[in-house]
Amino acid sequence: MSESQFTMGQLTSLCTLLHNHKWKHVIEAEMKERGYKYTIGKVGAMDLSKIVAAVETSAKAKHVIDANSYREIHALYHAIIEAIQGVGRGTVQFGEILRTVGLTFCIVRGEVEYAHNKDEWICVCLSGTIGAPRKGYEHDVLGFGFNHI
Amino acid sequence: MSESQFTMGQLTSLCTLLHNHKWKHVIEAEMKERGYKYTIGKVGAMDLSKIVAAVETSAKAKHVIDANSYREIHALYHAIIEAIQGVGRGTVQFGEILRTVGLTFCIVRGEVEYAHNKDEWICVCLSGTIGAPRKGYEHDVLGFGFNHI
Amino acid sequence: MSESQFTMGQLTSLCTLLHNHKWKHVIEAEMKERGYKYTIGKVGAMDLSKIVAAVETSAKAKHVIDANSYREIHALYHAIIEAIQGVGRGTVQFGEILRTVGLTFCIVRGEVEYAHNKDEWICVCLSGTIGAPRKGYEHDVLGFGFNHI
Amino acid sequence: MSESQFTMGQLTSLCTLLHNHKWKHVIEAEMKERGYKYTIGKVGAMDLSKIVAAVETSAKAKHVIDANSYREIHALYHAIIEAIQGVGRGTVQFGEILRTVGLTFCIVRGEVEYAHNKDEWICVCLSGTIGAPRKGYEHDVLGFGFNHI
Amino acid sequence: MSESQFTMGQLTSLCTLLHNHKWKHVIEAEMKERGYKYTIGKVGAMDLSKIVAAVETSAKAKHVIDANSYREIHALYHAIIEAIQGVGRGTVQFGEILRTVGLTFCIVRGEVEYAHNKDEWICVCLSGTIGAPRKGYEHDVLGFGFNHI
Amino acid sequence: MSESQFTMGQLTSLCTLLHNHKWKHVIEAEMKERGYKYTIGKVGAMDLSKIVAAVETSAKAKHVIDANSYREIHALYHAIIEAIQGVGRGTVQFGEILRTVGLTFCIVRGEVEYAHNKDEWICVCLSGTIGAPRKGYEHDVLGFGFNHI
Repeated sequence: MSESQFTMGQLTSLCTLLHNHKWKHVIEAEMKERGYKYTIGKVGAMDLSKIVAAVETSAKAKHVIDANSYREIHALYHAIIEAIQGVGRGTVQFGEILRTVGLTFCIVRGEVEYAHNKDEWICVCLSGTIGAPRKGYEHDVLGFGFNHI
Repeated sequence: MSESQFTMGQLTSLCTLLHNHKWKHVIEAEMKERGYKYTIGKVGAMDLSKIVAAVETSAKAKHVIDANSYREIHALYHAIIEAIQGVGRGTVQFGEILRTVGLTFCIVRGEVEYAHNKDEWICVCLSGTIGAPRKGYEHDVLGFGFNHI
Repeated sequence: MSESQFTMGQLTSLCTLLHNHKWKHVIEAEMKERGYKYTIGKVGAMDLSKIVAAVETSAKAKHVIDANSYREIHALYHAIIEAIQGVGRGTVQFGEILRTVGLTFCIVRGEVEYAHNKDEWICVCLSGTIGAPRKGYEHDVLGFGFNHI
Repeated sequence: MSESQFTMGQLTSLCTLLHNHKWKHVIEAEMKERGYKYTIGKVGAMDLSKIVAAVETSAKAKHVIDANSYREIHALYHAIIEAIQGVGRGTVQFGEILRTVGLTFCIVRGEVEYAHNKDEWICVCLSGTIGAPRKGYEHDVLGFGFNHI
Repeated sequence: MSESQFTMGQLTSLCTLLHNHKWKHVIEAEMKERGYKYTIGKVGAMDLSKIVAAVETSAKAKHVIDANSYREIHALYHAIIEAIQGVGRGTVQFGEILRTVGLTFCIVRGEVEYAHNKDEWICVCLSGTIGAPRKGYEHDVLGFGFNHI
Repeated sequence: MSESQFTMGQLTSLCTLLHNHKWKHVIEAEMKERGYKYTIGKVGAMDLSKIVAAVETSAKAKHVIDANSYREIHALYHAIIEAIQGVGRGTVQFGEILRTVGLTFCIVRGEVEYAHNKDEWICVCLSGTIGAPRKGYEHDVLGFGFNHI
């Protein structure tokens, strides 16, 4: 399989996981060639609402979504919450249960063809660590959300 | 960052996402060099218990865990359920809510150093598609679980 | 407030709750005037997947959504699951925990204006009873889901 | 079906949905004729505990429940949480995940006959909007809880 | 503290945990003296609905609740589901996620005084093991539910 | 059955439930004889993170776990969250949904033999009351978590 055979979701996850690696350039080049809009960022917090806000703000600032379209904000919001469910594994809570996260995120939007129809979809990958609020007492974590936009 | 700087969780996720790509060999080489035990497999089903069974069976068959140690089975089991929570996003159900999954999985076990202690940990990544039981009506999905063993 | 001031979600819920009442005609007339596509149906089952299937099939059969568009199926699916979460209240399960439901459903799709943008949205209302699999041992239940399409 | 054939839950939901409509008077007249105790109110907040408090306080202030009976408070409390589960759809959180609600609520208590036994039950309906903390970026939402009292 | 100072919930849990121990007679004597109605039983299954059914059937057969009162069945049902949530810890599923339970249960109903009001309440304790469907690969588990009746 | 036939989980739960009763000495003697490490404490709060912190701090202070081992902290943490799931029954929240808890907790760590392998496990029992933030308006509650360490 060549790079161009990666799905949009795989590119999003690879971009997040490889954010410090040379391979990321191949992934980014592929996303650009396909005309995807995307943004990559970092956020760390115990306060869950800060995570949601940071990811949402980045998508608006980088014009991955239109900040004045409720429809697009709605699509992104649910993709973010889905990704956080993967990070939280069973409960959508961080500081409330005394854990903190340090995450790299990637949000990608683009056309995908499913069953002969090409439509726009958006996906969010969150990758990093979760653990106690004490350096070194945290492990890997990964979450992923996907929605039509 | 060179490959050797990937965390165990990142290697696990990359191995899953790159399972058809040439880069996987680099990831596998790194895991072998570190002495990690791992297995890669595929499973597709509407029946959630089949997914759990397939992942668990593969880990036992490839000696990633000791099939006669309840402790190790317990560690793996919770890592699998965590990964399924990322796939399910909000509810741990597939066929019951009329959706099916097609997943590539990777289970990795090895020593990780946290806060000056080197201990064994296990992680599970599930990557593939979720959707209606009809070809082409499914989208990307990703789940990840992590546990001490 | 005149009838025309009901939101799309309110019309959907009223249509479901009033399905045997003369007021339903006023609600339906309003939905038609606005150009909404909708369908009303009934389903009773212990098996959750039958509920999902019945609602989805009705929406396709009555052309509320395009049965060949994965995007539209995806939008409807999540609206259905949301409505079932309201019916289930805490767990998305019926027969597995020995309860059954008898539901009237209404699915409505149409344009809604939010923040100066007019886009298409879909909503699902489920109304009826939940309880033991024994006539008379069940009480009222209501669920509602909403999504962009 | 005449109005008098509505169930207690349907009357509660209709009363909430029709709170600005002339039909509400028919619903209220029916509830009064049946001797139901009820209260209607409004609350908007990002803070979930304020929603719970507002609904509970209204029920006590209007003597729908006896504020000094733990039994009645317990019955109401669980009905409120059930209704909030319908509003939250999957997670009982508002501000923590950066969303806010504006709700009309109706709490009704009265005798219902099930399987030849007439007992008292209580139900709560929450109807309004959920969305981003920004006017116009929110959509319809509905939740319903039911309990014996 | 003498035995008579145990709460109804503590007596229920102790009765379940001590079911094979001589102390159970002290607990049972106390429950009888207070006029509590109760039943003790055992059930093992992968099928969750069988657990619910076994507990419910025992309560009816031993006249802890009136099998013809929907109100009482409703009260018991929610107490059972609450107890199962403690057993399941995060998801109300057994066989679907390839685990099985072997449980001793105790259901107790009686008058409790809260804030100067004496009313009837019901509680359910489930105690035993959860694990893989293979003898010896299971660990302790405990769940508890409480409701007004 | 003699006391020595209690499982580690049963001893933990009994120790918590009997904390003011003379039988507790028999339970404690048994735990000591088996070489279990344990701690017993109390905590009351609306703030969930305070509950988690109090239980975790007690386990570290009494050397039930090694405060510098992330592996042991991870094992304990998940056992605590499991126990809180039993207390919360359906949602891991206290103050956010306007309820408070007053809990006695017991954390026990020791060797258990499963399927011919003797390994270390840890369990947490939480027992007390949950209810409105008003004295006398709260009922019994119980939660239990179990993990390998």
